[in-house]
Amino acid sequence: MTPGPAASAQRRLPVRDDLVGLEPYGAPQLDVPVLLNVNENPYAPSEQVVADIAGAVADAARGLNRYPDREFLALRADLAAYLAVESGVHPAVEQVWAANGSNEIMLHLLQAFGGPGRTALSFAPTYSMYPEYARDTSTRWVVGRRAEDFTLDLADVRAHIDEHAPSVVLLASPNNPTGTALPAAEVEAVLAATDEVPGGCVVVVDEAYGEFRRAGTPSALEFLADHPNLVVSRTMSKAFGLAGARVGYLVADPAVVDALRVVRLPYHLSAVTQAVARAALAHADELMAQVGGLRAERDATVGWLRDRGLTVADSDANFVLFGRFADRHAVWQGLLDRGVLIRETGPEGWLRVSIGTPEEMTAFRDALVEVAGL
Amino acid sequence: MTPGPAASAQRRLPVRDDLVGLEPYGAPQLDVPVLLNVNENPYAPSEQVVADIAGAVADAARGLNRYPDREFLALRADLAAYLAVESGVHPAVEQVWAANGSNEIMLHLLQAFGGPGRTALSFAPTYSMYPEYARDTSTRWVVGRRAEDFTLDLADVRAHIDEHAPSVVLLASPNNPTGTALPAAEVEAVLAATDEVPGGCVVVVDEAYGEFRRAGTPSALEFLADHPNLVVSRTMSKAFGLAGARVGYLVADPAVVDALRVVRLPYHLSAVTQAVARAALAHADELMAQVGGLRAERDATVGWLRDRGLTVADSDANFVLFGRFADRHAVWQGLLDRGVLIRETGPEGWLRVSIGTPEEMTAFRDALVEVAGL
Repeated sequence: MTPGPAASAQRRLPVRDDLVGLEPYGAPQLDVPVLLNVNENPYAPSEQVVADIAGAVADAARGLNRYPDREFLALRADLAAYLAVESGVHPAVEQVWAANGSNEIMLHLLQAFGGPGRTALSFAPTYSMYPEYARDTSTRWVVGRRAEDFTLDLADVRAHIDEHAPSVVLLASPNNPTGTALPAAEVEAVLAATDEVPGGCVVVVDEAYGEFRRAGTPSALEFLADHPNLVVSRTMSKAFGLAGARVGYLVADPAVVDALRVVRLPYHLSAVTQAVARAALAHADELMAQVGGLRAERDATVGWLRDRGLTVADSDANFVLFGRFADRHAVWQGLLDRGVLIRETGPEGWLRVSIGTPEEMTAFRDALVEVAGL
Repeated sequence: MTPGPAASAQRRLPVRDDLVGLEPYGAPQLDVPVLLNVNENPYAPSEQVVADIAGAVADAARGLNRYPDREFLALRADLAAYLAVESGVHPAVEQVWAANGSNEIMLHLLQAFGGPGRTALSFAPTYSMYPEYARDTSTRWVVGRRAEDFTLDLADVRAHIDEHAPSVVLLASPNNPTGTALPAAEVEAVLAATDEVPGGCVVVVDEAYGEFRRAGTPSALEFLADHPNLVVSRTMSKAFGLAGARVGYLVADPAVVDALRVVRLPYHLSAVTQAVARAALAHADELMAQVGGLRAERDATVGWLRDRGLTVADSDANFVLFGRFADRHAVWQGLLDRGVLIRETGPEGWLRVSIGTPEEMTAFRDALVEVAGL
């Protein structure tokens, strides 16, 4: 927030009590050669993808004086077709919903199923935006702890669900910032525990980094058929390398989607966003081919860090949480001084690095050797 | 909402109590030759504008793997420069905010200044989305009535403000669906009345149709300098003919913008949306040139309807509310049967027609003569 006159003027405005003095969310946007701080995909779209996106937008632009398709059924069909290939699960178009980034997906979910008098539950360390979604929808926020190895403690999860009767449980898998995926048994155990919540409970498995999961790690998409209260969210920001396009989506029972259609702002997804997403989805093979390389680079980074004696969380994502440092801020700053921006996040002593290109990871390793004296 | 199995499944979901059974908002999206139902601009972007939009998106696409500029300062500067030309008021960049359509602007405002225990106040007939913004943010919704001629009854407005102590007052000017603009004296009277609200009150003047105002009608932008609790919202959907691009914006004291920065979802405005809006703003002269023609067509439509003995509300917008019909639905349906889609909205007996091209307005008039026997 701008300090000074604005802050003083704000005291005369009816700012919601729980927002007064808060800073806007977001990692620093610094101009640094090696950006490994916000889990972006390091690979820009190819010139062919760029050309097809521009062409699709030109077509859409000729009708921009008209409102976009409120139901964006063509995009939903393309997303369903992509998921069928990616996961082997074949959702119907009516099960797919999309929004401006998966954070708008989460907002829709909490607007429909949270709100005053309702509780959202998650387990930390986890994605730091979750409490903000709850706050923005006046949903009570309850957060338990993950185990020391960042997995869920199922008995503790059940105890929290029984005690707080949440209407929404938010679980990231792979989890951010730890990289931890939920095994099938854990997803099923959480779903079973929520069956007992008197008012009903929606379980949201946030698979923003789902495509980076290791062989053998399941997607929660596999459990949708048997669980009408399960929501699996995805994004085109990470594996697809389209963070700038803001396209998140989810798959759930059509009844869930119908509830979201009531709270979504009409025409929330622009004709341009729909066109960009569809153009990119037509290149899914090419865009996804990079995922394999990023996975290999991730595994190599985990191995290298462990070889140097550091503690590293198992990762199914495109980032790695490592530590522990007595003064993590000094390490973060030392890397930044060497042109490598990573993220100071997670429990005290840990740092998170996003997986970049091989060249970027070399720069990261070289800088870390210098800074931490590995 | 999809009836049948989904509705039945939804009963087991924790849908917020005040949403159960509701239909999603939105006019029917029908495939009809003459679309005069949602106040769109009838003129598609020129091929030069289309080419520049496509070029700007291609440039943006080359960096789409990165998150967009969270503060979109370049777009805010372009919007400020445009407003300076359009209105003669020169806002600073820090006074400008933008979002995915002015409905997301309204959501941000009610998230920051409304919420549980807060009240939003407006005067009907007015834009039918306002109560939905209140509902989506759990803000209490109070609605008074406009006078018979759709102007504000200032004594009644003051009485409502004194009684309900709203934290937000929403006033559309020109008002939708009536076309009624607020004279300067009324804006000032409302601002004076809100000075007495103990917790503070934000007055939002929604100028979505502001560019269509008649000569002599002021913009509320002129009152910003003296009123830190005034917000003026605008959109690129109407005068700019970019409904499909979803770009709304507002001007207010920087302290208001700082409060919105806390509740906005991070990266809410995609790099593509920013690029499209900036490309269109570079053609403001061309796009705005059509506004004069639409204004003239609007005035001609008002005159023609009055000449045929109909009652017509004075309009400063790109639509006209006219009536009154004993069976307005029959008139609406008769027009639709003749390929002309208008909107059945406003008080009983009235209909609203958007201003289209001269050819579309001829089709409207011919159909109305047949249907209503004028």
